[in-house]
Amino acid sequence: DFQFALEHDIKPAFGISEKELDFYVRNGIIHWSPRIQGILSRGKLAVQQTQESAHNYLISLLIKGAPGSGKTALAVQMAKDSAFPFVKVISPENMIGYHESAKCQMIKKVFEDAYKSPISCIVIDDIESLLDYVSIGPRFSNLVLQALLVLLRKQPPARHRLLILGTTSLSNETLASFGIENAFSSSVTAHSVTEGSEVIEIIKQINLFEKSDLSYLEKELEGKKLRIGIKKLIALSDAACQSKDAVADFVSLLKSEADLKLDLEIQDHY
Amino acid sequence: DFQFALEHDIKPAFGISEKELDFYVRNGIIHWSPRIQGILSRGKLAVQQTQESAHNYLISLLIKGAPGSGKTALAVQMAKDSAFPFVKVISPENMIGYHESAKCQMIKKVFEDAYKSPISCIVIDDIESLLDYVSIGPRFSNLVLQALLVLLRKQPPARHRLLILGTTSLSNETLASFGIENAFSSSVTAHSVTEGSEVIEIIKQINLFEKSDLSYLEKELEGKKLRIGIKKLIALSDAACQSKDAVADFVSLLKSEADLKLDLEIQDHY
Amino acid sequence: DFQFALEHDIKPAFGISEKELDFYVRNGIIHWSPRIQGILSRGKLAVQQTQESAHNYLISLLIKGAPGSGKTALAVQMAKDSAFPFVKVISPENMIGYHESAKCQMIKKVFEDAYKSPISCIVIDDIESLLDYVSIGPRFSNLVLQALLVLLRKQPPARHRLLILGTTSLSNETLASFGIENAFSSSVTAHSVTEGSEVIEIIKQINLFEKSDLSYLEKELEGKKLRIGIKKLIALSDAACQSKDAVADFVSLLKSEADLKLDLEIQDHY
Amino acid sequence: DFQFALEHDIKPAFGISEKELDFYVRNGIIHWSPRIQGILSRGKLAVQQTQESAHNYLISLLIKGAPGSGKTALAVQMAKDSAFPFVKVISPENMIGYHESAKCQMIKKVFEDAYKSPISCIVIDDIESLLDYVSIGPRFSNLVLQALLVLLRKQPPARHRLLILGTTSLSNETLASFGIENAFSSSVTAHSVTEGSEVIEIIKQINLFEKSDLSYLEKELEGKKLRIGIKKLIALSDAACQSKDAVADFVSLLKSEADLKLDLEIQDHY
Amino acid sequence: DFQFALEHDIKPAFGISEKELDFYVRNGIIHWSPRIQGILSRGKLAVQQTQESAHNYLISLLIKGAPGSGKTALAVQMAKDSAFPFVKVISPENMIGYHESAKCQMIKKVFEDAYKSPISCIVIDDIESLLDYVSIGPRFSNLVLQALLVLLRKQPPARHRLLILGTTSLSNETLASFGIENAFSSSVTAHSVTEGSEVIEIIKQINLFEKSDLSYLEKELEGKKLRIGIKKLIALSDAACQSKDAVADFVSLLKSEADLKLDLEIQDHY
Amino acid sequence: DFQFALEHDIKPAFGISEKELDFYVRNGIIHWSPRIQGILSRGKLAVQQTQESAHNYLISLLIKGAPGSGKTALAVQMAKDSAFPFVKVISPENMIGYHESAKCQMIKKVFEDAYKSPISCIVIDDIESLLDYVSIGPRFSNLVLQALLVLLRKQPPARHRLLILGTTSLSNETLASFGIENAFSSSVTAHSVTEGSEVIEIIKQINLFEKSDLSYLEKELEGKKLRIGIKKLIALSDAACQSKDAVADFVSLLKSEADLKLDLEIQDHY
Ligand SMILES: Nc1ncnc2c1ncn2[C@@H]1O[C@H](COP(=O)(O)OP(=O)(O)OP(=O)(O)O)[C@@H](O)[C@H]1O
Ligand SMILES: Nc1ncnc2c1ncn2[C@@H]1O[C@H](COP(=O)(O)OP(=O)(O)OP(=O)(O)O)[C@@H](O)[C@H]1O
Ligand SMILES: Nc1ncnc2c1ncn2[C@@H]1O[C@H](COP(=O)(O)OP(=O)(O)OP(=O)(O)O)[C@@H](O)[C@H]1O
Ligand SMILES: Nc1ncnc2c1ncn2[C@@H]1O[C@H](COP(=O)(O)OP(=O)(O)OP(=O)(O)O)[C@@H](O)[C@H]1O
Ligand SMILES: Nc1ncnc2c1ncn2[C@@H]1O[C@H](COP(=O)(O)OP(=O)(O)OP(=O)(O)O)[C@@H](O)[C@H]1O
Ligand SMILES: Nc1ncnc2c1ncn2[C@@H]1O[C@H](COP(=O)(O)OP(=O)(O)OP(=O)(O)O)[C@@H](O)[C@H]1O
Ligand SMILES: [Mg+2]
Ligand SMILES: [Mg+2]
Ligand SMILES: [Mg+2]
Ligand SMILES: [Mg+2]
Ligand SMILES: [Mg+2]
Ligand SMILES: [Mg+2]
Repeated sequence: DFQFALEHDIKPAFGISEKELDFYVRNGIIHWSPRIQGILSRGKLAVQQTQESAHNYLISLLIKGAPGSGKTALAVQMAKDSAFPFVKVISPENMIGYHESAKCQMIKKVFEDAYKSPISCIVIDDIESLLDYVSIGPRFSNLVLQALLVLLRKQPPARHRLLILGTTSLSNETLASFGIENAFSSSVTAHSVTEGSEVIEIIKQINLFEKSDLSYLEKELEGKKLRIGIKKLIALSDAACQSKDAVADFVSLLKSEADLKLDLEIQDHY
Repeated sequence: DFQFALEHDIKPAFGISEKELDFYVRNGIIHWSPRIQGILSRGKLAVQQTQESAHNYLISLLIKGAPGSGKTALAVQMAKDSAFPFVKVISPENMIGYHESAKCQMIKKVFEDAYKSPISCIVIDDIESLLDYVSIGPRFSNLVLQALLVLLRKQPPARHRLLILGTTSLSNETLASFGIENAFSSSVTAHSVTEGSEVIEIIKQINLFEKSDLSYLEKELEGKKLRIGIKKLIALSDAACQSKDAVADFVSLLKSEADLKLDLEIQDHY
Repeated sequence: DFQFALEHDIKPAFGISEKELDFYVRNGIIHWSPRIQGILSRGKLAVQQTQESAHNYLISLLIKGAPGSGKTALAVQMAKDSAFPFVKVISPENMIGYHESAKCQMIKKVFEDAYKSPISCIVIDDIESLLDYVSIGPRFSNLVLQALLVLLRKQPPARHRLLILGTTSLSNETLASFGIENAFSSSVTAHSVTEGSEVIEIIKQINLFEKSDLSYLEKELEGKKLRIGIKKLIALSDAACQSKDAVADFVSLLKSEADLKLDLEIQDHY
Repeated sequence: DFQFALEHDIKPAFGISEKELDFYVRNGIIHWSPRIQGILSRGKLAVQQTQESAHNYLISLLIKGAPGSGKTALAVQMAKDSAFPFVKVISPENMIGYHESAKCQMIKKVFEDAYKSPISCIVIDDIESLLDYVSIGPRFSNLVLQALLVLLRKQPPARHRLLILGTTSLSNETLASFGIENAFSSSVTAHSVTEGSEVIEIIKQINLFEKSDLSYLEKELEGKKLRIGIKKLIALSDAACQSKDAVADFVSLLKSEADLKLDLEIQDHY
Repeated sequence: DFQFALEHDIKPAFGISEKELDFYVRNGIIHWSPRIQGILSRGKLAVQQTQESAHNYLISLLIKGAPGSGKTALAVQMAKDSAFPFVKVISPENMIGYHESAKCQMIKKVFEDAYKSPISCIVIDDIESLLDYVSIGPRFSNLVLQALLVLLRKQPPARHRLLILGTTSLSNETLASFGIENAFSSSVTAHSVTEGSEVIEIIKQINLFEKSDLSYLEKELEGKKLRIGIKKLIALSDAACQSKDAVADFVSLLKSEADLKLDLEIQDHY
Repeated sequence: DFQFALEHDIKPAFGISEKELDFYVRNGIIHWSPRIQGILSRGKLAVQQTQESAHNYLISLLIKGAPGSGKTALAVQMAKDSAFPFVKVISPENMIGYHESAKCQMIKKVFEDAYKSPISCIVIDDIESLLDYVSIGPRFSNLVLQALLVLLRKQPPARHRLLILGTTSLSNETLASFGIENAFSSSVTAHSVTEGSEVIEIIKQINLFEKSDLSYLEKELEGKKLRIGIKKLIALSDAACQSKDAVADFVSLLKSEADLKLDLEIQDHY
């Protein structure tokens, strides 16, 4: 049945519809911090190097960050912006219940397809999930890990260029032990939202609250610290909006789920 | 033979009979504490969000609690109350002796069926059992775990909405290590019965004892502490009722099986 | 070849001959202590609850005890006394060399057969052996364990009633780690023989020794302590009887194999 | 190919030739210590019990001892002396390179054949080797272990009698952890040769040395202690005999290979 | 599908095109330190010994070094320079997702092909990757390891000569535990670039920067210490060249990725 | 494909050509120490015992020693000198990439062939490699180990005689844990070269250096200590001979690869 999937489910090698990519950036990219632009610039640079370098035909960039910090959306946005003729997302979502060799073959197939296009971009999403990683043990698929390590360093055929974008929530220690960090050309970190003012910026841009609510919210969050991924933040604000007492509910949700506090000393563990 | 089961035993994708759901709530939902209403409200909110949110088409809620605390009954009650056109319970009862890949395929199939309905509800019952978890080792099926982690975060197709309700007796530490807590949007705890007065409330509502017995029982349990799940509590009262000396037998059973004591300091380990 | 066994060796689902059950109680049930009656009463109560309860259609009782303490005989006696139309013993003896999935299927099959009868009794004999448990490691079949845990909690179909009797020599700690104790409705302990007077009672009832020997034996064992299972005790007395010097030989066997001592402080480790 | 072996290599179930059994007692049984007679008597008693007991139709005896202490020869001698119509040796020699399930099936087959004879004797030789036991890890076949544990306790069919003789070099601790000691009705220990005088007794009986040499040897070994199995002792004396300086060579071999010393305090580790 | 690969993908046994080898030395060999010549001389000596020795027909040389230090390029350069009629590179790139036995067969096939040529050279590239080695556990394919250990010591058939060149990033400790160091005749280390002056030498030779920039760069790097593999160094300079502010960007990249510091005390961990 | 190998690659059971054996003693046996003669005498004695003993038809000798100490050459020399009609070498070289059961079958086949000849000699070369032993873990094939342990103790059929010669670099501790030392009748150690004078003796006999060089070399090595296997020593001298400055190069190679020092206290770790 994997064999069947390999033959029937896989889209034609060249091209992936704009639509499918949009699916991963459902809520757009909100510029809630100058760092967002910084990350996207790193992506743009990588795209440019892939196109123009005389010495390197294989460029790779790893996007690290806490769960829900927006890694997938950022990587897919970079891939979209590349406008390369071949763009493909390798995602655990399409490999549920597959054994490791099936996974390897699927991953390998994407790379082989990419090698056929003169210039390609592959997004390897959620590396820990591709590896079936769980910290207890720890357990993971060494077969998939080794396949990734080789593919990340393998040159595309002559006159072909390849950009690889990876995303992961694995800690730096684990990435080092796995040799993943080393296998990427470079890496960049997606941060969690940690400032009350950043929350307000985001709320303004998603435009779910009433104007009147906003000023009240600003007072509530002013100078406060918290820790929450953009993904969950959007979910919470959406949930709160369904209530009559939207602002109060939102603040209380932030307290219980995002550790909202006055001037808390928070260090990003990435 | 799993293949056969997949093709023949599985009910048609859309719809599950009211009757089958009732089977999981055999003894109804007794409101022995205001917390019961609290839990059901969380369920109602999740149902509403699933129906109406503009940003989130995938909502999930994890019901945690000690063995026998009523997790399954509460989750199924929420699912019934949703009145969604597609409601399905994923239960280890239908996967006895299946190997992990067979389990994964069955679970995946339920999700695929759910994706076909415009709005669906899936109950993932007894997650530790689905994972074949045993604390010695510990051992568990990483294949099933990884499948659940991906399915819990995978968006339903465009214009389709999905509510996932999970139940588990796993400790918070284990849930964290497994990344399960993180994969659910939110969670709620089902508590054990810990007050004598709560027992009396339950006894009154199940209506098994004679009126005359009740006042005697009240005196016996007044101000006492214990720890017992609603599931076992109903079983014990039922057993005691078969005897002539129902009240005395019931109290003695509570002493041996529910640690009934005067004013014991009990902390719920959830 | 397991498939073959499944189809040919297995007896018709309904009914097991009286004779087969007697095989497990080869030497009858000797009432060498009031506790024997106590255990059998617990069995009778479970039978009655299974027949009459309005709320519980699934009752289970675990018989714990040291090797050779008579667990199997007691469980099978209870099953016989139930006079239920369906009685079946799940025993490792019929699964030698089977792999865990074959075991699971056999166990599952017995339950499925039981579900067809309006009221049934299943004896799960020697749980540690069904689990292929060995303390080194420890090693055990998690597949069989998980199957048992689910089957022990799974309700029979509507209007069907099921009584499950289990036997095991596993320690309470191991039973807890495995979640087995929790999965049974209740449990009871079979004890070893620890008093000289109990030995005499047994010797009298099995009627192997000469009358003249008995008084001499009484003097020898008066006030003495020992630890031996009823199973081995019967074997030793039988062996001694073959000798001319039956009483002396019997006492010396008790000394070497049952730690026979004057007034030894013995704690049953169950 | 195991299947083939099962069908073609296996001798007809009833009867094993006298010759084949003699093969295991190549060098006869030398009565170098009164303990040898003691061990053989235990065997004779077990044979008698198997034939005559009214309560026990399954008797088993475990022969423990250091490598080369003569366990196999002693067990096979007992089996020969039983003169039972069915005698069979289960030996790892016939299962080289077989996987655990093949081993289980072969072992099971021998028992099934034995059950067909009214009275049978099975020798389970070299249990540690049947289990593929190695102390590093430790590793062993749990499948074979569990099969043995069940077969050792399983009653032969009605009106059939079975005697099981086992041999092993495993330590008492390991035997206990494995539950093997518990599964045998009783056990007996084969000892190493530890006295100079015992060596002389053996040398006399195997009759390899010249008469003149013997008195010289007696002086050399008088009052000395050593530790060597009868198997190796016979091999060393045989090797020494090939030399011209037989006695001196023999003594020097005993020094290097059997730790020959004056009055050494030796405790048998069994 | 491995079978297929074995039959179709593999090039004819004798000869590998000059072009394919060049692929591994994409950026040539820059003589940025006298040690480079030293390493190549060791290779030349090994080639000569393989051709002329009267006693040794099997010579092997292991090239150790940090990731990106140029191991593969150096080994392949030696192989090219040998001008042997049979030259083949065993590389993990062609075995992605293969299980260990498939890998073994592929490796074995290359050796068998080599044995057919009177004089051959095999490059075993990236040994850790061939072994699927990961430090967590650690995990690795013992089947591949054992195959390599045997092949590294196995004499070619009479009148045939074989040179084996290996590359690895494994630490000396791991190489010792694996018995790999011992299996090679001798070994040599490829070093990282650690001196500012070495960087300038390399920059001059790859000729990417403007003349004017060079003098400025010299001032910046004079007397500085860093640690970077030649592979990454070429990549960074190439990336910097795409910017307008090439020199400044290059220096800043060296600071973040190569730990560029004034007079840092650096010990090569090889 | 193993099946194929079994049927086609294996030489006819009786007889192995003189030539093939010579292959393992490529450089002859140099008598660089009286111990060499001692080892060969042990072999001669074992051959004689195999031929003449009245009690022992199975003799085995284990040759232990550091890597490259000449174990294989010595064992094969003994086998050649036996002039037995059946001589066979079991070597890992012919089992590359085979799984453990294939290895077992091959080993078993050699023994079965040997049993057909009236008198046979089997060399089990490189036992650690046959076991796929690696100290990390440790890992090894228990199936092969158990097969060897049984075959090493299994008597050849009546009127057939068998000599088994084994070689290994495993430490004594590991050999004991594996039960290998115990399974062999006796053992002997091959030593490394540790004296300067021994080196000179060897150099003289291999006759690669000029006469004039020898006296200079003697002065250089006089009274020096080192540690090197004869195998590597021959390789180094051969390498040095290719240079113009043969003696100086040879001494410098000994310094770097054989730890050549003045009067170093060296203990052989065997
Ligand atoms: N600046 C931003 N960066 C990233 N995502 C953003 C940003 N602004 C809005 N979003 C939205 O936030 C969501 C981020 O979710 P995403 O799945 O990318 O997170 P993630 O880190 O990959 O999560 P996970 O750890 O679960 O894989 C997307 O819906 C995206 O459209
Ligand atoms: N307030 C309540 N909450 C939950 N269950 C209740 C309540 N009142 C009565 N019940 C009854 O109690 C029983 C609870 O059993 P349930 O199987 O749901 O417990 P559980 O926590 O899922 O047990 P387990 O840990 O074995 O899975 C059901 O029969 C249900 O009808
Ligand atoms: N009071 C008693 N309780 C149990 N068994 C008794 C009693 N009196 C006599 N017996 C006899 O003792 C024997 C008990 O053996 P049984 O196999 O039931 O023990 P067990 O605890 O199951 O042993 P094991 O631990 O080996 O499974 C039976 O033959 C039974 O007939
Ligand atoms: N008293 C004796 N007891 C046992 N064996 C004896 C005795 N006298 C002589 N022998 C001979 O000694 C040898 C004992 O070897 P045997 O194989 O039985 O030892 P073992 O303990 O089974 O060895 P292993 O540990 O290798 O299995 C046999 O050849 C037997 O004929
Ligand atoms: N002196 C040199 N030594 C080695 N490589 C050099 C040298 N000068 C330039 N190069 C170039 O540097 C690159 C070295 O990359 P190579 O793949 O050989 O490194 P590596 O150590 O094998 O890396 P990895 O650890 O990833 O396997 C090649 O492109 C090679 O052409
Ligand atoms: N006295 C000697 N003893 C052994 N080998 C000698 C001796 N003199 C010369 N040689 C030669 O030395 C070489 C020894 O290599 P051999 O393969 O036997 O060593 P080994 O210990 O088996 O190595 P390894 O540990 O790799 O298996 C052979 O070529 C042999 O001809
Ligand atoms: Mg993501
Ligand atoms: Mg439940
Ligand atoms: Mg029992
Ligand atoms: Mg034996
Ligand atoms: Mg490389
Ligand atoms: Mg060797």
